[in-house]
Amino acid sequence: MREEVAKLKYMFNPRSVAIIGASRSPKKIGYEIVRNLKEYGFRGEIYPVNPQAKEILGFKCYKSVLEVPGPVDLAIISVPARIVPKVLEECGRKGVKAVAVISAGFGEIGNIELEREIVSIARKYGMRLLGPNIFGLFYAPSKLNASFGPRDVLPGNIAFISQSGALGIALMGWTILEGIGLSAIVSVGNKADVEDADLLEYFSEDPETKVILIYMEGVRNGRKFMEVAKKVTRKKPVIVIKAGRSEMGARAAASHTGALAGSDKIYDAAFKQSGVLRALNFEEAFDWARALSKLPPPKGENVVIITNGGGAGVLATDACEEHGLKLLRMTEDLMEKFKRYMPPFGSPKNPIDLTGQADENAYKGAILEALNDPRIHGIIALYCHTIITDPEALADAIIEAYNTAREKKPLVVNFVGGEECNRGMRKLEQAGIPTYPTPERAVSALATLFKWARYAGFIKAEYE
Amino acid sequence: MREEVAKLKYMFNPRSVAIIGASRSPKKIGYEIVRNLKEYGFRGEIYPVNPQAKEILGFKCYKSVLEVPGPVDLAIISVPARIVPKVLEECGRKGVKAVAVISAGFGEIGNIELEREIVSIARKYGMRLLGPNIFGLFYAPSKLNASFGPRDVLPGNIAFISQSGALGIALMGWTILEGIGLSAIVSVGNKADVEDADLLEYFSEDPETKVILIYMEGVRNGRKFMEVAKKVTRKKPVIVIKAGRSEMGARAAASHTGALAGSDKIYDAAFKQSGVLRALNFEEAFDWARALSKLPPPKGENVVIITNGGGAGVLATDACEEHGLKLLRMTEDLMEKFKRYMPPFGSPKNPIDLTGQADENAYKGAILEALNDPRIHGIIALYCHTIITDPEALADAIIEAYNTAREKKPLVVNFVGGEECNRGMRKLEQAGIPTYPTPERAVSALATLFKWARYAGFIKAEYE
Repeated sequence: MREEVAKLKYMFNPRSVAIIGASRSPKKIGYEIVRNLKEYGFRGEIYPVNPQAKEILGFKCYKSVLEVPGPVDLAIISVPARIVPKVLEECGRKGVKAVAVISAGFGEIGNIELEREIVSIARKYGMRLLGPNIFGLFYAPSKLNASFGPRDVLPGNIAFISQSGALGIALMGWTILEGIGLSAIVSVGNKADVEDADLLEYFSEDPETKVILIYMEGVRNGRKFMEVAKKVTRKKPVIVIKAGRSEMGARAAASHTGALAGSDKIYDAAFKQSGVLRALNFEEAFDWARALSKLPPPKGENVVIITNGGGAGVLATDACEEHGLKLLRMTEDLMEKFKRYMPPFGSPKNPIDLTGQADENAYKGAILEALNDPRIHGIIALYCHTIITDPEALADAIIEAYNTAREKKPLVVNFVGGEECNRGMRKLEQAGIPTYPTPERAVSALATLFKWARYAGFIKAEYE
Repeated sequence: MREEVAKLKYMFNPRSVAIIGASRSPKKIGYEIVRNLKEYGFRGEIYPVNPQAKEILGFKCYKSVLEVPGPVDLAIISVPARIVPKVLEECGRKGVKAVAVISAGFGEIGNIELEREIVSIARKYGMRLLGPNIFGLFYAPSKLNASFGPRDVLPGNIAFISQSGALGIALMGWTILEGIGLSAIVSVGNKADVEDADLLEYFSEDPETKVILIYMEGVRNGRKFMEVAKKVTRKKPVIVIKAGRSEMGARAAASHTGALAGSDKIYDAAFKQSGVLRALNFEEAFDWARALSKLPPPKGENVVIITNGGGAGVLATDACEEHGLKLLRMTEDLMEKFKRYMPPFGSPKNPIDLTGQADENAYKGAILEALNDPRIHGIIALYCHTIITDPEALADAIIEAYNTAREKKPLVVNFVGGEECNRGMRKLEQAGIPTYPTPERAVSALATLFKWARYAGFIKAEYE
């Protein structure tokens, strides 16, 4: 790891955090950050800095970072833009290792000189600088929520990097609502110093991060991004939502983050060459990320669909063909195996139709067969709600099959129905089995896992 | 309306319903249908028919439909397939007007002779026959839930026709969960007599139905479907999910409903020629249907995006270009108008970026401007959750703007955030404003409304 990247450990695993511009007024950014740090349970030292205050949220407050008694690894800076250089100088003299500049009013409104100035101060003192113009950062293992976004982020294995502030912060709340766990959230803002390539390299070595998901409008140094991405994607999947795909969108992006969006075709080619998985929207990106962060890579190309509804099976079949998943052509002995879990009018072909009469035991049996047969490498389990089955009991049965199988294999699940189906899907999620609201979204997520596994060499050529 | 189509009024607006094969055992189909009829509040007469029972759920039970004292408009038949012909003869002699054959065991398992027999009995007596192999039917205005699906279907203006049983019944529950209102649900099963074209024609005249949504795997008489669809789509939008698009999917569909799926290209061309809107999955289909059933058609092509997050604006802009929506090029006077609702660093271009500082009043003002300006024909309102705004108050503000504007215009909304955003979106839905979980889905729905409005002639050529 490059030395300047290794320094990011002070950002994500700081022993102490100073909040420069801490505030006593709720709803102010400088208050919310201190509150999130405290209430999310950061275990290191918390030092609010504000010349007017004695105490904030129970923490002793300092007039300047220079007055803080112990060492400061990370400083979160939320003061007016014009004061940032002075504050950075103090951080440098204090020996701060990394700074995150929340403050806006730099490159994004044309103040390029001021932005250059703060970068040069940071470099002079060997500090890495995140931002400016950001909403903060989050890292689950160190219980660090140094952001003014929602507090109760769910811990997980997806590192989320966002160039957009408002959207990024809104997505923090959205991931909580959707039950999506994150290892890290990084608001990169103007990317004046720390940029996507640094974070890719850092998170590629982070044991808590299994997938890296980036919302970007543009990169400053495309060549560097590609070089790093090429290496990282062989090790961990990288998903990118690149906004400004269209001409109009690129113009909008330019006026938003000042991103020189460049031709979308160039980005698209660069992503393909470097193994980056490009998602078209955040729903798709997180759909993929959940599968990629939870499931093992497949060892071959053969997928089966197990369903109780023919229609759902047909929809999933269409989606498999579109997304390049190969449905296993069933052999006689396999069909005999699956016939045991269906009535005579069921279909043991692929899609395997257990029929509307299937209960949780039928699913358990069929899914366990699929998990234990070495000719099958991935499973799409679909359930259309019927009056005879309890979706929560079905979830338990699927979890039992998954946990008792001889090996873990990629398994994605879709239940269609009402609130009872949602409860069942939440159970599956908690057990580490990704679920999706439609057959097509389940297939798309599984197909992306296969795509990455091919790229990273997990699927061997000897498999058909 | 063709005479045989007009007869469907007895199916959807029956004065009385006989359930032949009614049961006293909960979870049995013949029990669930009687229960749904009763508990959903069907106001006509309910006559269970079962030679072994005296009373079911408080209703007097009859040995045969011939013993029912009053006239019977609709008979729901749920007896073993081999008995269906005998029961149908009795219905005919009784003077029943329409029958829905729940029973399976006909064409779908190769019993084509038996299927032909029941159709010929129905025709001999002038009865329309729905099915066989169906889960029933629902019609909101007559409070008729004659299905064994979920009970508490939400009333609304979308007629949903499903060729798939398990998927259709699961989607009934899903619409309740998603808060989607339906005017009708029709399980068409084997389409032995009543087919899509009949229902299209019938619902095109139904004042409660504003959009018709069909899940199909194949049609028997393509020419007839196209002829009818061509007329209907000029009056009401028709959305079709045609499964079996891929080669593998078409094979799966053939083994599921026996549908001769035919080449997908032929279907695609036929849909285009006849103004049918083709959705790729049920999420998309209902996204579109909600916008098309709730919003007025646009009078021109000019769309504005109003957002508090630049990133969301860029994503929506990309989606507009992809889906063929035209973003209005802002004039000086319009920009001056919108500037009143944003801080100096906001952007009055399109997307109109109110910035993260926008509160509900800023949104209300900007949306009202857009609604009242005759140069604007459609609005995409996006909100990324911030700590300074309460999404429910924002929803109220948007609703007030919508209701006080000089005219109703297409308006779609996306809030990104946590549970509080969902609450806000539910408020908007209840006020008749369609909401979506992502900017892209909001754009796709609005674009489909524009597409249909162009086809049906609502957008005049004189608009740019």
